[in-house]
Amino acid sequence: MTKKPYRQAFRDRVRPARHGGTHGPAQRGFGHRRERDDDDAVLLYGWHTVTEALKNPARRIRRLLATENALRRLAEDGIALSPTPELVRPDALDRRLTPDAVHQGLLAEADPLPAPDVEELDPSGIVLVLDQITDPHNVGAILRTAAAFAVAAIVTTARHSPQATGVLAKAASGALEHVPIVTVQNLARGLSALKERGFFTVGLDSGAPDDLANVGLRAPLALVLGAEGKGLRQLTAATCDRTARLDLPGTIKSLNVSNAAALALYIASRALD
Amino acid sequence: MTKKPYRQAFRDRVRPARHGGTHGPAQRGFGHRRERDDDDAVLLYGWHTVTEALKNPARRIRRLLATENALRRLAEDGIALSPTPELVRPDALDRRLTPDAVHQGLLAEADPLPAPDVEELDPSGIVLVLDQITDPHNVGAILRTAAAFAVAAIVTTARHSPQATGVLAKAASGALEHVPIVTVQNLARGLSALKERGFFTVGLDSGAPDDLANVGLRAPLALVLGAEGKGLRQLTAATCDRTARLDLPGTIKSLNVSNAAALALYIASRALD
Repeated sequence: MTKKPYRQAFRDRVRPARHGGTHGPAQRGFGHRRERDDDDAVLLYGWHTVTEALKNPARRIRRLLATENALRRLAEDGIALSPTPELVRPDALDRRLTPDAVHQGLLAEADPLPAPDVEELDPSGIVLVLDQITDPHNVGAILRTAAAFAVAAIVTTARHSPQATGVLAKAASGALEHVPIVTVQNLARGLSALKERGFFTVGLDSGAPDDLANVGLRAPLALVLGAEGKGLRQLTAATCDRTARLDLPGTIKSLNVSNAAALALYIASRALD
Repeated sequence: MTKKPYRQAFRDRVRPARHGGTHGPAQRGFGHRRERDDDDAVLLYGWHTVTEALKNPARRIRRLLATENALRRLAEDGIALSPTPELVRPDALDRRLTPDAVHQGLLAEADPLPAPDVEELDPSGIVLVLDQITDPHNVGAILRTAAAFAVAAIVTTARHSPQATGVLAKAASGALEHVPIVTVQNLARGLSALKERGFFTVGLDSGAPDDLANVGLRAPLALVLGAEGKGLRQLTAATCDRTARLDLPGTIKSLNVSNAAALALYIASRALD
């Protein structure tokens, strides 16, 4: 489970474009070039994902590929296009992506967004901390919900997290442009840095005695979510100020992690209001 | 977008097993044999999905395939096994499934569960009504959250809905065994039947003027969710007693549909408490 989403994200990220061949970046050795470098383009596809990127002044788009239909719709919506789009047929986009990718006629190659350091985070509102959540669909859905709840940032580990590209970007549906992603090398140290900056750190744990709705939440708040199945790592839970569970009345006591994030954000937003 | 999840679910459902060949059920014509018949086995894989099925007296399992590791874990957990499991190597399960399927050493071929009619629904609690939500990951996650909130049933259309098998069953993480799925031919007529049985029908619509938390919700309640992007169909919205939106403070005003379902269920559960 751990590796697959990674691989997925990686394929999205480096699949060679029309200029590609057998010596594209994909050949450089999976797992050895995960650092950000000049070739670390992110791939954005889908209507919301690409149009939000086009509207984001902080996002540098290197190439923009669009079908005739998409170009017409962009013009109708008055969305400024930079760089000049390259007109392509839908199947040219299909070939760049996995068969289940819904590109809606738009694909962009872009620079990654600048990522703030944890020390730069404004101590206000809510941040979400993700402890090795590897599925890019889930992380994308979490980003989208985070944007809907005006979350200040997502904090995640450099390793064991999917890249902010491809499937993740599509599932985020434009939210990548609205929620900064802070990457830390070590989550426990990242949590400690948040605590030093005044954040109240609360880890979601289905085995915790207290219901999140009954914990005295206060801003600035860091909500910490673990991977499905595994939950929070022991050191992560131990570093949090508190752990809390979501109170669920039914027979199944665990949720998809993005659904858990949505509930936690709703509860926290109401508590901090 | 509409067709892909369908196709995915179909592939999961009918991919021939070891007895298969080129004349298995998959050859019978996609789209022509969607009715339930004797060959309509559902495919269940993954630990929670299969073990919850094994514990469900209403679920008839035809074949149970398990790896050595899975068999050991089943024995440790004292889970009764019927039928007698067939010991397989992990790669035998890999071959039955798509590359990204996480089977955790367990796969079952089973009968579909009996589906109640809408007229048989006990008029109490909450039901969720899905209006052409086609993505099996989303429907599976919705089922899982529905089980966590003790939802009485899911009502969905026979067409434009994924089958309760494969990817959907895996995403539901065992919840298929806990939440009955009621299938209707026509959703507006299904909603009318619910209303006749006393259900208050509320459609989620991001453009509705009222916040779901401020609508006077009462039991029995039917919460109606539309597909992402398209939302509720016009007739669906018109048939509901009320429409309501989820109040979201951020820049992005729409959620992944399973996240929206989770919030709606949380809000409704509190309101009906």
